[in-house]
Amino acid sequence: MAFLRNIWYVAAWDHEVADGRPLARTLLNEPVVMFRSSQGVHALTDRCPHRFAPLHLGKQVGNALQCPYHGLEFDGSGACTRNPHGDGSIPKAAKVKSYPMVEQDSILWIWMGDPEKADPTLIPRFESLDPENWYIGKDYLRARANYQLEVDNIMDLSHIDYLHASTLGNGNGKNAETTVVQDGNTVHSLRLNRNELLSPELERRNGLPPGTPVDRWLDVRWDPPGVMELVVGNAPTGSEDPRKAPGQIRYFQHLFSPETEHTAHYWFATSRRKDLGPEGERIVAEMIVFLRQPFETEDLPMLEAQQRTMGTADFWELRPILLPTDAPGIRARRVLDAMIKAEQK
Amino acid sequence: MAFLRNIWYVAAWDHEVADGRPLARTLLNEPVVMFRSSQGVHALTDRCPHRFAPLHLGKQVGNALQCPYHGLEFDGSGACTRNPHGDGSIPKAAKVKSYPMVEQDSILWIWMGDPEKADPTLIPRFESLDPENWYIGKDYLRARANYQLEVDNIMDLSHIDYLHASTLGNGNGKNAETTVVQDGNTVHSLRLNRNELLSPELERRNGLPPGTPVDRWLDVRWDPPGVMELVVGNAPTGSEDPRKAPGQIRYFQHLFSPETEHTAHYWFATSRRKDLGPEGERIVAEMIVFLRQPFETEDLPMLEAQQRTMGTADFWELRPILLPTDAPGIRARRVLDAMIKAEQK
Amino acid sequence: MAFLRNIWYVAAWDHEVADGRPLARTLLNEPVVMFRSSQGVHALTDRCPHRFAPLHLGKQVGNALQCPYHGLEFDGSGACTRNPHGDGSIPKAAKVKSYPMVEQDSILWIWMGDPEKADPTLIPRFESLDPENWYIGKDYLRARANYQLEVDNIMDLSHIDYLHASTLGNGNGKNAETTVVQDGNTVHSLRLNRNELLSPELERRNGLPPGTPVDRWLDVRWDPPGVMELVVGNAPTGSEDPRKAPGQIRYFQHLFSPETEHTAHYWFATSRRKDLGPEGERIVAEMIVFLRQPFETEDLPMLEAQQRTMGTADFWELRPILLPTDAPGIRARRVLDAMIKAEQK
Repeated sequence: MAFLRNIWYVAAWDHEVADGRPLARTLLNEPVVMFRSSQGVHALTDRCPHRFAPLHLGKQVGNALQCPYHGLEFDGSGACTRNPHGDGSIPKAAKVKSYPMVEQDSILWIWMGDPEKADPTLIPRFESLDPENWYIGKDYLRARANYQLEVDNIMDLSHIDYLHASTLGNGNGKNAETTVVQDGNTVHSLRLNRNELLSPELERRNGLPPGTPVDRWLDVRWDPPGVMELVVGNAPTGSEDPRKAPGQIRYFQHLFSPETEHTAHYWFATSRRKDLGPEGERIVAEMIVFLRQPFETEDLPMLEAQQRTMGTADFWELRPILLPTDAPGIRARRVLDAMIKAEQK
Repeated sequence: MAFLRNIWYVAAWDHEVADGRPLARTLLNEPVVMFRSSQGVHALTDRCPHRFAPLHLGKQVGNALQCPYHGLEFDGSGACTRNPHGDGSIPKAAKVKSYPMVEQDSILWIWMGDPEKADPTLIPRFESLDPENWYIGKDYLRARANYQLEVDNIMDLSHIDYLHASTLGNGNGKNAETTVVQDGNTVHSLRLNRNELLSPELERRNGLPPGTPVDRWLDVRWDPPGVMELVVGNAPTGSEDPRKAPGQIRYFQHLFSPETEHTAHYWFATSRRKDLGPEGERIVAEMIVFLRQPFETEDLPMLEAQQRTMGTADFWELRPILLPTDAPGIRARRVLDAMIKAEQK
Repeated sequence: MAFLRNIWYVAAWDHEVADGRPLARTLLNEPVVMFRSSQGVHALTDRCPHRFAPLHLGKQVGNALQCPYHGLEFDGSGACTRNPHGDGSIPKAAKVKSYPMVEQDSILWIWMGDPEKADPTLIPRFESLDPENWYIGKDYLRARANYQLEVDNIMDLSHIDYLHASTLGNGNGKNAETTVVQDGNTVHSLRLNRNELLSPELERRNGLPPGTPVDRWLDVRWDPPGVMELVVGNAPTGSEDPRKAPGQIRYFQHLFSPETEHTAHYWFATSRRKDLGPEGERIVAEMIVFLRQPFETEDLPMLEAQQRTMGTADFWELRPILLPTDAPGIRARRVLDAMIKAEQK
């Protein structure tokens, strides 16, 4: 179960790393500490090379992190810039690994592979997370489950009527058509359900009169290793192509990175255009609170139960049976498997 | 530390699996879900073959269990009977393992081996657990200890005066004679103590005037892998064969199945004949509450301490010293070892 | 990461093992039970050879420990002295390992190696822990960290200004000179800081007027495997050899033994001469309460974080960078490594 290395991973929301407040997070089994300095945002190995104290327990001193144990200081490049003891000499080997890091679309992206290959233009864009033009509600959960199980979960939304029966489901999803479209290494899971009644809760939140039939589509864009945008739209039922018909469109972002083989970071968000005015800010704030509940109390326990059942076994080794609704998730797995294989050659 | 496969194991008390309320239990390291349908009582692998969700988290729909994640349904034979999505097609491989299960003498018996060999006539009878004729008090504990340590504990009741000094013991057990009798694969531990004074608590519960000397016998019947009945009797002291003398006889059942190599399920019960009238029902209810206390707060901590001390080592590898009082327990171990060896040929 | 065997380890403070109150402690991965009898203080393997019950759960009966499960009794030599069942016969193999144990300087010392080599004259003396002449404040902590990390911590007190910034530190330690002196297998870490201002707390506890500059020395004597005495002195600043100048001297003992590879026992103490009168008793009692706070809430979390960061890796394998302040701790590690290597030949 190797990880893809030469790819941009999500490491944090922009607001999670505040000036003077370093953030520790394990990514791909590696302990990382992130902090902001006047030179930007940085990611270092979270382990002093002297006595292996975690740097995140230390404090920020100017543009450097100070080790909490004996006070050595390290700048954003990972170089030791100060030994406060005796003659202050600094051994050559006193440095820590620094990871390339880019802030874009409200996300701190980290490159876990060969730094030479860290090309920022490879980062998938999330225009709907650009804080210039969007109000964004953001949250974070940690899952004791492999990140690919999380990806599968979003790529196959047929689970909504079962796992979320009392929250997001409406019992009307069974006739939805699922289509998979691949574009390079990007995989789209396109789901269309005609003549559907939304749950009362969703009708209310979408401003629809009770009992209004709609054609609803839920389209997910996946980029490796696990960054996804779900665009949900509904239009009055009956148009030839509901995606082009006038109606409502909502944006939801689901971003996953492996912490370890069997645990994952999960960042989720929803956003509304700023031209909606201050009302939009209130809406995304409320929506993210609403969404956290099913994500945390319905998805998370299921994903963690899956992981416990699977134990340390590989997904394919367990020979899952495949349904038509699995097509998008399986395609994404195949793309990622091929990229990992190519990288390991 | 292999498990015997072709044998009936206890999986649950009858009342633990109620209609519409599936019960999950790990047996021999395998996750099992039990449920009742109009066709009887069933045991399936507790893992959906689609995405490995635990089926016990789902709900019963008619005669089937519905997977909590995407809604696939499985009947008591393990066959997938419904895919609620799209055209409803069901892949051939969509089935789960079903274990033979028999309800007899208040017990749900499960066969973990080759289903072809699952002959219900091989199940040891517990006539004293037949709810037609007996009032039965039943309870359950889980032990973080190997089930054979539990068997040893019941097969050598010389521990009563030490481990249960303040509850079941009376300090008079040291002169008891222990005899072992083998009958096929059944082993009997026969214990006789002449001229004994019971503890005040037991005198009261047995309706004996304080200070009445008795000849007490405690006979255990063991069948592989770990099902036992303890029959305790006492008669006025002095008769040639106290087991045949008129006196009181009580029945206690101790049933053990491995959950894993180092944890076990423990079902215990006591029963009184129905011809005793409603008073008998009250007595067994009170008695089972009384017994749970030493079983849970004296035996369990000791067995778990033993297991921690032994770690993952095999019992024989640790070269236990053997006392005369160990004879019945050791005989049972030898019988079981031979059966496992024969099965693995 | 082997342990040195033929050496005296600290097993307990004298007061931790009281008559009739056995104490269990794992040392070098071995479960040990200690108890006092009329013949002295004893250490046995904490595991009955019959059914592997932990003996420390039993009770002391005269000069023997009684197994809590079936009542076998063992004396201080490890011999089984009583089987209370049947004819009372005792199998030859019914004995447990006994470890040589010596009580000296308020410490119970245990010998984990070849008993033939257990020469009490090899025990390092702690005259400042002799209860005849000293008031002694004693305490104990358990650390989820290797004992050598604990030794490093005491051998390099340059951490005080960082880890203990708000308690023991004063921010003035950076100019201290560190010297290492080796005498056989004993290593001394000598630290001298001239013209230093103590923290207000330490000024108060040392009876110094606020703002009094002193020359302070902190000298640690280390003996293998991890027993240390820290002698701290301060004298009015300016004398040629502050250690010989009239001033205050305080004694602090830091004693470490491995519980497992990654956990350690930590005994610490401070003592004042009895000629100080009853006031001295109050002072050491207060001081030990004061010291426990930084030791438990500052050192312990750091040492445990180090251990988590290191995982199961060997210290040298991680290629720590070395600063001049590491010299004493590294010297102690080299001495111990050489002793272990010699023992394993």
